Formats: sequence, structure tokens, C-alpha cells
Amino acid sequence: MELTNDLIIKALLREQVDRTPLWVMRQAGRYLPEYLRTRAQAGSFLQLCQTPELACEVTLQPLRRFNLDAAIIFSDILTIPDVMGLGLYFTEGEGPKFRKPLQTGSDIRNLPRPDVHESLAYVMDAIRLVRHELAGRVPLIGFSGSPWTLATYMVEGGPSKSFGKIKKLIYDQPALAHLLLEKLADTVTDYLNAQIESGAQVVQIFDTWGGVLSADAFKEFSVRYLGRIVAGLKREHEGRRVPVILFCKGCNAHLEAQAGTGCDALGLDWTMSLAEARSRVGQRVALQGNMDPAVLLAAPAVIRHEASQVLSSYGHGSGHVFNLGHGITPDVDPDHLQALVNTVWELSPSFH
Amino acid sequence: MELTNDLIIKALLREQVDRTPLWVMRQAGRYLPEYLRTRAQAGSFLQLCQTPELACEVTLQPLRRFNLDAAIIFSDILTIPDVMGLGLYFTEGEGPKFRKPLQTGSDIRNLPRPDVHESLAYVMDAIRLVRHELAGRVPLIGFSGSPWTLATYMVEGGPSKSFGKIKKLIYDQPALAHLLLEKLADTVTDYLNAQIESGAQVVQIFDTWGGVLSADAFKEFSVRYLGRIVAGLKREHEGRRVPVILFCKGCNAHLEAQAGTGCDALGLDWTMSLAEARSRVGQRVALQGNMDPAVLLAAPAVIRHEASQVLSSYGHGSGHVFNLGHGITPDVDPDHLQALVNTVWELSPSFH
Repeated sequence: MELTNDLIIKALLREQVDRTPLWVMRQAGRYLPEYLRTRAQAGSFLQLCQTPELACEVTLQPLRRFNLDAAIIFSDILTIPDVMGLGLYFTEGEGPKFRKPLQTGSDIRNLPRPDVHESLAYVMDAIRLVRHELAGRVPLIGFSGSPWTLATYMVEGGPSKSFGKIKKLIYDQPALAHLLLEKLADTVTDYLNAQIESGAQVVQIFDTWGGVLSADAFKEFSVRYLGRIVAGLKREHEGRRVPVILFCKGCNAHLEAQAGTGCDALGLDWTMSLAEARSRVGQRVALQGNMDPAVLLAAPAVIRHEASQVLSSYGHGSGHVFNLGHGITPDVDPDHLQALVNTVWELSPSFH
Repeated sequence: MELTNDLIIKALLREQVDRTPLWVMRQAGRYLPEYLRTRAQAGSFLQLCQTPELACEVTLQPLRRFNLDAAIIFSDILTIPDVMGLGLYFTEGEGPKFRKPLQTGSDIRNLPRPDVHESLAYVMDAIRLVRHELAGRVPLIGFSGSPWTLATYMVEGGPSKSFGKIKKLIYDQPALAHLLLEKLADTVTDYLNAQIESGAQVVQIFDTWGGVLSADAFKEFSVRYLGRIVAGLKREHEGRRVPVILFCKGCNAHLEAQAGTGCDALGLDWTMSLAEARSRVGQRVALQGNMDPAVLLAAPAVIRHEASQVLSSYGHGSGHVFNLGHGITPDVDPDHLQALVNTVWELSPSFH
């Protein structure tokens, strides 16, 4: 089916567009009352992810309210470790945890390469459902966690402050760490390719924890595997290019290394101006971002001002997808997101 | 009294030295069994800070074990809000909190400018005691939290993940935010000058939370006040220059702005190589850092390798003070810190 609105794909490929497209990380989320109702109906966050009809419903909810230029499939970055046998569960207020975190070398050596078409069929089913419902209105984004970020959760067993276990692994047993990261890179490649075959028209890789590494360790233990994944992806499907976005939070010191992976675009958090990022890597990749999500807590006039600053910072020409620098937070008033969407629609044409 | 070892002061002023001096953030801390004993004796962390004899004791403990080139006065960054009337307390596992966080405009307008000589006499007494005990062996570092970091805790009421309250303040009521930051900058200036008069020979300002701000907001709400403080400090005391170090965690995107405050040195976390930082601001300031504290969890041979990488990354010449990129963590074996100190003593002369 032809896309009615392919602005995001064009912008990610740095082709000419007539306004700056936008979507919002975690746009299907707790700030929306209708999301909370569907989640309550599902019983739990994990059941919501695993029930294709409900995952499809929450994926579409933000698009019913706002003029967004993409949907992103509702899922979790930790589905892969879950189907590798670690047993994902969520505890209220403490975030994701694993029943069987990786504790020994044999735990790592015995990790299976799951058949993601089968074990993550619920994701593929949800993608097909969303594509059917969208009927070409906007593109659908698929996603995965990065090998480094998945490894971090799998070794720490859940969220961490100091990342002592995974760092001890990379420093004391680098060969074992590389074995784990290779296995994860292979499975992430399978997973994203399965999403593309099921209908994802853009894919984003989230390296949530790349920013806890030193410059050298980031290149060795994260970027290397991001490049391996990008090289293994089906970049053409349904006769179109499938753009790849990397979003490495807290990694602005390493933009050049990220751009060197062969991806089409970099997602940026809000700690670096788009002007600076563009001057460093704008000839090689598109940029996505990067308003501080906390701005959405402020008054609509402030949101308008800050959004216009983000647009001006990128400046004129193609290659910008507007987004927040991280996920929208649960305490945001949906009317404030409306103010942001209105601003980008209104002000961005003058930059093209 | 003449300093026997003034390497750190010289390195911070980018003068010639014959080896790279080092100290370690949180060197007086929970990884040391003798620290845990003194803390138990004090009854609580806050009582340890507030009892000059005990604060002096723990300040000196790491110097009895290791060949470190500076002492840093044992205290907490939140002493200032405490004596401004917010009532600091600590809960096990949850970090610092305030009984009366700032909630309204009048809370901010009514904040007093405390007489720090009087209300923080316990800090000044501890500094005088440590100077007496050190007898010129190495310099003593004084410190304070930055206005932005103090404001963050004072408005959030404790640690935060999203910093929603303080960010809503800066975006919705910037004039009120500036009033708070001005008051804090004045008091931090008073506090550091009092520490210098009491015997601190170097001062460091910790901007622990500068990294949660956008590039523009960091300049407006953090760097501006850091510059104001630096301009107000007594830079000469006891016939010597008193170097000022800024440590802004997670702010490597803004090194130039930090260097523009007039400080003598920048502390760096481990996410950017010293080589890159030096190429950007090494003509203007010395650099302190920046080994990932997690390396100290690895084997001594790994620590040696990583420390040599840090030394090589800075390269030849003056202007480097070796340190970790953040505080040493409680799970580190003190013998591992010994391995680090030995390595820096052994390998660094060849860089000078």
C-alpha cells in the first residue's frame, strides 16, 4: 500500500520535504488516559505488549489525537532477553527485572539464538495489525534495544546505578563479553529483519546505556555491534529504503563513531544543540530530536518558544525529524503535546 | 607552613611537574574499613560531617594508606541548603532529603543568606584541624555544590530521576529560578572563601546535575553562576594561588562554556577521552580525571592497563591531575586503589 505521508522516511534519508516531520518517543504511554484504560484492561504492561490487538490499539491511540508523522510499535526493549530464557518481569516502581540473570560464563555460552519469528510472533502480529489499521496513513517504526543495553540488563539483572557487574565483565573477561554481545547482535539483527518483513518501515535501535561507557569502551562494546547489526539489516522492503535510526542516550561525545555505523540517522538527547551535532555529522546522517521532555511540563507559550529554538538550531534544509530527546513522561498534559505538534506544523515550513 | 608536596597546585596551574599528581573523588569513603568504623562511631553520616575531629580523622585515613597528592575535606555538598533552613536528613538507601523543600515563590524569596563562618563553623574547624595534622604534607581541597545542583535538590526535595519540579521552575518562572540561583551563588562564594580563609588550598565546585540540562539551559542556569562564583573567590591566600576546579558531571558537550568561567581546571567524567578534551580546552585550563571508577572492580593488571591509557590519552606535558571520573564506589577493594596509585607513580614520570 502506498504511504499517504512519507515525510519521515524522506527526512531520515535527507531528501527534500516541505515541513519537519515529528513523532515522540513513548508517544503511546502513560500520559494518555486512553492508554491507562487499555493497560488496565490488559492486566499488566507485559500482557499489553504480548496481546497484539491491545498493542495495536495503544500504538494507534496517539495518532487519533495528534498529527504525528509516524507510529511506533508498542513493545519493550527487553523482549529479546525474555525469549532467550531470562524470564522478564516488572515490579511496581522498580522497573524491569530478570528471574535468571546471566551469572556465569556457561550462562552466556549456553544462551540460545531464538527463532524470533516464532518466539516473538506477538510482536510480528501486532506490526501486521497496525499496518493494516494505518492503511498507509504514516509509516510504522519498529525497534530493538542495542546489544550493549540488553547485555547490561541481562548481567545486572535489572536497572543499575553503577553497572558494576557488566563493567567487571567487560574489563576482566572481555572475550566472554564479546561472545555475549555477538550473540545479541545476531538476535537483534534477526529481530529487526523480522519486524521489517512484517511491515516496519523504519527501525530504531535504542542504546539506552551506551552513555555509561568510556570513549574507548563505547566503541569496543557498543558501536562495534551497532555497525554489525546495521550491516545485516534488510535495507530495502516493499520497494522502499528502510531507514535505520540509532538513539544512543548520553553518547553525544561519540557522534562520529555512531555516524560511522552506516545508519541513516542519529537520535539525540537534549544535552547538545542540533547546530553543533549537525556541524559534526550532518553531512553523513539525518538528526532526530531533541527537545528536553521536561519542557512539556511548562506552559504552552514556553513550549512554543523552546520548539522554535530546536527548529532554528537545526536550521534550514532537509535531514531533521523533530522529537523529544527522550520519552515523554507520564506527568505531561496531553494538551501540551498538542501545543508542540501545532508549533512544529506551523513554524517548520519556513525551514524548508 | 610550606607545602612539602605542591604537585597538584602546580599541575592545576599548568606548571611543570615531574610526575602526574593524583587524588580520588570520595577517597575518604565506604570502601575503607577504617572509614566504616569511624562512621559507626559517629552514629550517622551527618554527625560524622558535623564533628570536626571525626571529619578530620576520615579525611586523613586514605592518606595513611596511599601516596595521594591531596586531601579533600570530608563533608557533604548539601550543607548549604541545610543551614539555609531546609533541614537535611538521610534515609538509608534513598539518599539525601529535605524536611522543608522549596515549594513556593515566597519560600525562595525568604531564603536567608547564612553567615557561613558561624553556621558552618564545623566545616571550618575541620579544615583547620586537617591542615594542622597534615603539617604541609599535601594540599587540602575544599569544595561546594554548584548553585544549579543545590537548587535541584532544594526544589525536588531529594534525588530525582526526571527533575520535573526544578525544570518546570526554570521554564515557567525563570526570574524566580534566577533569584534562587543568585542567592545560592552568593552563599557558595561566601562558603568557599571561608574555606580558603580556614586553610583550603584548592577548591572544587561539584555540578553533579548540570548534565540534565539542554545546552542553552546549562549556560543560562548553571555556567553563568559558576562564573559569578569564580569571579568572587579569593584566588590568593597564604601567598599562593588557590586553584579552582569545576567538576560538571555529564557536561562534556559544554567544555568551552565551562572553561570560560575563569576556573583553572575542569574535572572530567570518563565519557570523553582526555585527548579530545585537551584538544578543545587544554590551552585554557588543566584537566582532572578521568578513569571510569568501575575499572577499580577489575583485576590489578586491567587497572594498570586502563590507567596507562588515561595517561597516554592526556599525553605529554603539564596540566593533568589524575583522578577517577566520579567517586570511588563502596565495593572497591582498597588493594585495587593501591594498584592504581602505584601505576600512576610508576608510569607518569615519562610524560613529563
